[in-house]
Amino acid sequence: MEEASTKRKVTHTLTSGYSDHVRVPNVIVMVGLPARGKTYISKKLCRYLNWAGIKTRVFNVGEYRRKEENACDANHGANANFFSADNQDALRVREESARRAMEDLCEYLETSKGTVAILDATNTTKKRRKMVIDFCDEKGFRCFFIESVCDDPNIINANVTDVKVNSPDYKGVMSAEQAKDDFMKRIDNYKKQYEPLDMDNETYLSFIKVINAGRSFYVNRVNGHAQSRVIYYLMNIHLLPRVVYFTRHGESEYNAMGRMGGDSPLTPHGDAYAHALEQFFKGERVQDLRVWSSQKIRAVQTAKGLKGIAAHVEYWKALDELDAGICEGLTYADIENRYPKQTEDRKKDKYHYRFPSGESYEDVVARLEPVIMELERQGNVLVVSHQAVLRCILAYFTDRTMSEVPYIDVPLHTLIKLVPRAYSCHLTFYTFDVTRRVWTAREGSLNLCESPQSISPPNTPARTP
Amino acid sequence: MEEASTKRKVTHTLTSGYSDHVRVPNVIVMVGLPARGKTYISKKLCRYLNWAGIKTRVFNVGEYRRKEENACDANHGANANFFSADNQDALRVREESARRAMEDLCEYLETSKGTVAILDATNTTKKRRKMVIDFCDEKGFRCFFIESVCDDPNIINANVTDVKVNSPDYKGVMSAEQAKDDFMKRIDNYKKQYEPLDMDNETYLSFIKVINAGRSFYVNRVNGHAQSRVIYYLMNIHLLPRVVYFTRHGESEYNAMGRMGGDSPLTPHGDAYAHALEQFFKGERVQDLRVWSSQKIRAVQTAKGLKGIAAHVEYWKALDELDAGICEGLTYADIENRYPKQTEDRKKDKYHYRFPSGESYEDVVARLEPVIMELERQGNVLVVSHQAVLRCILAYFTDRTMSEVPYIDVPLHTLIKLVPRAYSCHLTFYTFDVTRRVWTAREGSLNLCESPQSISPPNTPARTP
Repeated sequence: MEEASTKRKVTHTLTSGYSDHVRVPNVIVMVGLPARGKTYISKKLCRYLNWAGIKTRVFNVGEYRRKEENACDANHGANANFFSADNQDALRVREESARRAMEDLCEYLETSKGTVAILDATNTTKKRRKMVIDFCDEKGFRCFFIESVCDDPNIINANVTDVKVNSPDYKGVMSAEQAKDDFMKRIDNYKKQYEPLDMDNETYLSFIKVINAGRSFYVNRVNGHAQSRVIYYLMNIHLLPRVVYFTRHGESEYNAMGRMGGDSPLTPHGDAYAHALEQFFKGERVQDLRVWSSQKIRAVQTAKGLKGIAAHVEYWKALDELDAGICEGLTYADIENRYPKQTEDRKKDKYHYRFPSGESYEDVVARLEPVIMELERQGNVLVVSHQAVLRCILAYFTDRTMSEVPYIDVPLHTLIKLVPRAYSCHLTFYTFDVTRRVWTAREGSLNLCESPQSISPPNTPARTP
Repeated sequence: MEEASTKRKVTHTLTSGYSDHVRVPNVIVMVGLPARGKTYISKKLCRYLNWAGIKTRVFNVGEYRRKEENACDANHGANANFFSADNQDALRVREESARRAMEDLCEYLETSKGTVAILDATNTTKKRRKMVIDFCDEKGFRCFFIESVCDDPNIINANVTDVKVNSPDYKGVMSAEQAKDDFMKRIDNYKKQYEPLDMDNETYLSFIKVINAGRSFYVNRVNGHAQSRVIYYLMNIHLLPRVVYFTRHGESEYNAMGRMGGDSPLTPHGDAYAHALEQFFKGERVQDLRVWSSQKIRAVQTAKGLKGIAAHVEYWKALDELDAGICEGLTYADIENRYPKQTEDRKKDKYHYRFPSGESYEDVVARLEPVIMELERQGNVLVVSHQAVLRCILAYFTDRTMSEVPYIDVPLHTLIKLVPRAYSCHLTFYTFDVTRRVWTAREGSLNLCESPQSISPPNTPARTP
């Protein structure tokens, strides 16, 4: 088997087929007044594309401006007058910031570090957009505009209150009330010169208009796979409050034996966890709860008790555990003995390593794409799946890099509750003591950022290797 | 193993997760002047949704009208005056046709035979749309409008010339010239009363406007998974002329031994085919040819020689052969001996049958979704893959039912050339005589409709079981 696998001729495999051999770097240019969610879209899109294997970075012109100001020890930012079109000094600082952002963006794409660069700035005038287009044409980058248009005062107000008053421009400088007032004036200054993307006279451009946070969309001249994917993603995300729960199946017979994969049923401990889960959700009373389970017996058995509580239960093959191929059913000791070369290869790059006749983490990410899309579209879902699969899904929500994915700790008998926030997600881990056949949920909030290599909830129960 | 598989508790598996447990029937309502591609979109969408496992049927009001006319022995259809808003008699016939179409549509959705019904008619007035909306509300169907808007005379002209003059309204009744003239008058009659979907006053509706055959789109209030998918599909299809080629890998060692699956290299015959393929494409000079190969050794080796000819070669895991799980590497005789129950189950429903620890045809269709989407987006692709996978892809293009999929004949050493046409696809099979290590391509056009159960090209070479 070792020998068969070294025969493989595929050195550079493009698992999902999404990556493009003849890659054209894409510049995604945000357009819109302040507080229209440009930064929200930029960050979220960046996270998604990186997760999907398309290297992406955001270049936020506001951050460059603040750096510029710090360098000359000024703090224009806190004052709406700075954003008046008549303020020549300020205009110079803003143009310099934009220039620096573009320089870095260019370096990022040209050195092949990245495939997509997102330019997060207002870009509200045709003149400014023309400058960006000319720059991209010269460099051979493909240009795609995302304009966020919003005339719903509730959405704007929520955005200003949630995010803007906490911006570095205001924090510690003035009160929230004053900050809000100043920011509304800043918007007014932009409004004076705002020229929206023109559906009649800018038809040669590739763009999408996102209207009122996704109530409607206008799409023009989609060019290439990356743009097509970005559009699909933007059409599926929404701002409605919701909760997503994740859990591995309860302990299975193979877990207890320390064997990989397989399709064994639950042990009595696993059954106890399934029961505890049922009790938990009886108490939670989540509205219209949907349960998505993998098709493996251990997951189906774990989800079984929820049939009476959930609005419905679905079984997705895409949620099945990473296929360990020739190593299915073996213990880690078996694998090391039988396939020392494989063990070594896996250690070197666990994310890209593919089990002979099986899958890699990269393969799993590719098949999870529709799951992520549906998780974005819907709310109030419980996902019952497996360690490697949940690592991949959690990596999406918590913005982990490829190399971190295979090391995210997702213990058995632990329920993870995820609540999306403006620029991040809040996670809570509930651990269950199944040995006593009663559940004593200990709640703890975990900052996934603090321990990237091994992420442990405060109360981790004993688990299988 | 037999026992393990009967343990499975998943009786109703929703492979792709796409199907919705709490299914709301969707009515897709076409809107637009004649010759705007409504029937093209309806047919194509219907084919796609059925392939993806969402049961769909088109209800074309024009066909009901012609039936109505035949019944009363009239032939109003051939005359543009029939479509004048002033013609009361004709109006009655047209309304009666619409009513009958809606009745059948309702029966289709209510008896749970179908999930999506497409109402293919002009629906150009607000009054008519109101009637459809009220009808859907009453029945509890979800309503989604697709409006095709086109002001490009070239697109309209092409559509009238290609399709309309051959319509049953005209064929044998008048000359092509007269037919075209009459049809243009029919359009004028519709134009007088045309009220496009209103982006300001019909915002409570879910709809997409397809503008100039996909140059741009306006999307409003997407509601649910089916609509979201329809939109993504519409954004990826295009009318540009193109060719897609399909082939299985050359004969592999496992093929020669009559064994299933595995990952064995090519035999000398297989090598000869790879060489013949290279020569063929040297001669074809396809512009900007893209080769998409599976990641199995036999496919990679088959595509190897094309590296110098194609614009690029990509390796998709999604194109790997159906995973036969515990039956991988066995002969059919082995399987019958070892797993008689499995063999029997498979015969009963080959499409849904899943190999223990492996896949079903239904699973393969689910993972081929992004491949189909990319094949629609791009042109001039050669797909190098495997029997079961190519059956699934060809079923999409040739509109085969689920039960037909596993029986489509895709012989070894045969190249299939597919050219999309208005409402169908044209297929050509090239068979290669690899025993002589030269290729003698014998061309033959095959109507896949004529022999649904076993589809054979005119010159089928000897092939493995």
